[in-house]
Amino acid sequence: MRLPEDIARHLVARGELWESVPGLSGMRGTLALLRRNLSLSVAELAGQFTDDEWQMPRGVSFETLERASYFESFPQWLSGASHLSGDESVLERIATSVSPGDLARQSFASAKAALPPAVCYHTYEALRGKSIASPVVMTAEETCWRHEGARLSKLERGWAFTMREIVCLADSNETESVRQRGMAEATSFAASLGLSTRIDVATDPFFAPSARGKAVLQRVKSLKHELLFDYPDGRSLAIASFNNHELFFGDAFDISLADGSPAASACIAFGIERWVLAILMTYGVDQQDWPDALTRGTASIGVAQ
Amino acid sequence: MRLPEDIARHLVARGELWESVPGLSGMRGTLALLRRNLSLSVAELAGQFTDDEWQMPRGVSFETLERASYFESFPQWLSGASHLSGDESVLERIATSVSPGDLARQSFASAKAALPPAVCYHTYEALRGKSIASPVVMTAEETCWRHEGARLSKLERGWAFTMREIVCLADSNETESVRQRGMAEATSFAASLGLSTRIDVATDPFFAPSARGKAVLQRVKSLKHELLFDYPDGRSLAIASFNNHELFFGDAFDISLADGSPAASACIAFGIERWVLAILMTYGVDQQDWPDALTRGTASIGVAQ
Repeated sequence: MRLPEDIARHLVARGELWESVPGLSGMRGTLALLRRNLSLSVAELAGQFTDDEWQMPRGVSFETLERASYFESFPQWLSGASHLSGDESVLERIATSVSPGDLARQSFASAKAALPPAVCYHTYEALRGKSIASPVVMTAEETCWRHEGARLSKLERGWAFTMREIVCLADSNETESVRQRGMAEATSFAASLGLSTRIDVATDPFFAPSARGKAVLQRVKSLKHELLFDYPDGRSLAIASFNNHELFFGDAFDISLADGSPAASACIAFGIERWVLAILMTYGVDQQDWPDALTRGTASIGVAQ
Repeated sequence: MRLPEDIARHLVARGELWESVPGLSGMRGTLALLRRNLSLSVAELAGQFTDDEWQMPRGVSFETLERASYFESFPQWLSGASHLSGDESVLERIATSVSPGDLARQSFASAKAALPPAVCYHTYEALRGKSIASPVVMTAEETCWRHEGARLSKLERGWAFTMREIVCLADSNETESVRQRGMAEATSFAASLGLSTRIDVATDPFFAPSARGKAVLQRVKSLKHELLFDYPDGRSLAIASFNNHELFFGDAFDISLADGSPAASACIAFGIERWVLAILMTYGVDQQDWPDALTRGTASIGVAQ
């Protein structure tokens, strides 16, 4: 079994993987097809939980992240989107500069939107202030952004990556039961692809001292689990996570059950590019060796021009 | 036939359309299903041109945009992505601020990547400096970002939106022939959905005086056409465009044909949310009235909780 660095190097040489900017990868050929098929298979898995699929906005408001206590928890990852001022004189200076890219980079206004660090913030935002008559179980696949600085690594940890989430808002029995079912289904899906994985209890890397207590509680109360794929060198990769938020988001976003009490929530998250990597580490980089379920469709081969 | 503003207002009231930030929309329920089915149908159309589907990086480098003369042409639309500094003291200040969102918005470093204004820049970047032995015809669907300021309008003109492109690099006969075939196929696809459309010659809104000459040449040489859907009030909506770049990108990115001459290029672009809007304007907002091809799958109805 090759390590992620070797696999990425091989795919770059084959012309199927490249970066436009550090942390932002493109894919072609059989790699792109593998990624698409994994995205479809994970969507089918989510379809066993719900047919309520959303298309999320491509950015989230800073107000929503504040409400979610994001800044106490994970500010170290946050990315933002901004746009150039509409001021003609600024645009004119950029248009006529000998180094317009550099000038443009310095000319963006302050960020107007945060780039989503996870899918589920959108769910809480959309349901804010509402009373839910019956459990909400929804799913969406979106681009998420987390800048983990020097830890960026192709396929394994991109600045941007693709996340499929299943989010449940209901009473705490129902949300925990969906989370448990998620662990079982994800484990059996991984097994159906011949991946060797294990479930382990986990904690989030909370930033602020005030938030770090949450990590202790997470572990003590077993609120977060991950589906781990082990590398031959002892490292491991979380390819899915299963999170019980208790009443945290229901309280913060004022989402209530029919009896007026705050909704509990849980989410199940799949990192699509990490599933791609686990397949490549298990079966190698040649399409003919991949599981049949992941070779649906055709891709132009021999992309290196 | 209702106008876009009325349709958006209706869908917002029904809980199927919302904005997280001005210009960034989310969709649920039958609207999300319609969008997904249009995305699939347009992907099928692209599949008639090529099976070379790429997954594009989520950002483009400023250097690539410079090389493409983007800043002379369209700086007014550009959006960028940046991330918070990894400096612990900055993060600590944000984490402990009473107004962390505002502080974070001001604390992003200068933009590290441009958010893609179109899909095809990635294609030229990936093929930069290469010689192509045979025509390249590829396709990808990606999120694109164009901030058109006060012109933002839900479904019609988002800050972020979904674009499917077919890009061809070959000699100039081949690229123009793919572009012409694109016009014919897009017209017949629209007709198959019962949309009343027309093809018209068009120009891009070049910004700098030096670039504006390009618009004149575009029109004189008929290098850009659009597939237009007419509103009852006289406005019209470009739901696809067909662009012949002649040797511009082949020259700029040093992409050559087997004989060493620069490659010509053309692209065909579909704005997915605009096709959604054209369907809604033609058939109304109730799923039962939409064409069968666009009601595949199921969506949870009654999303307004």
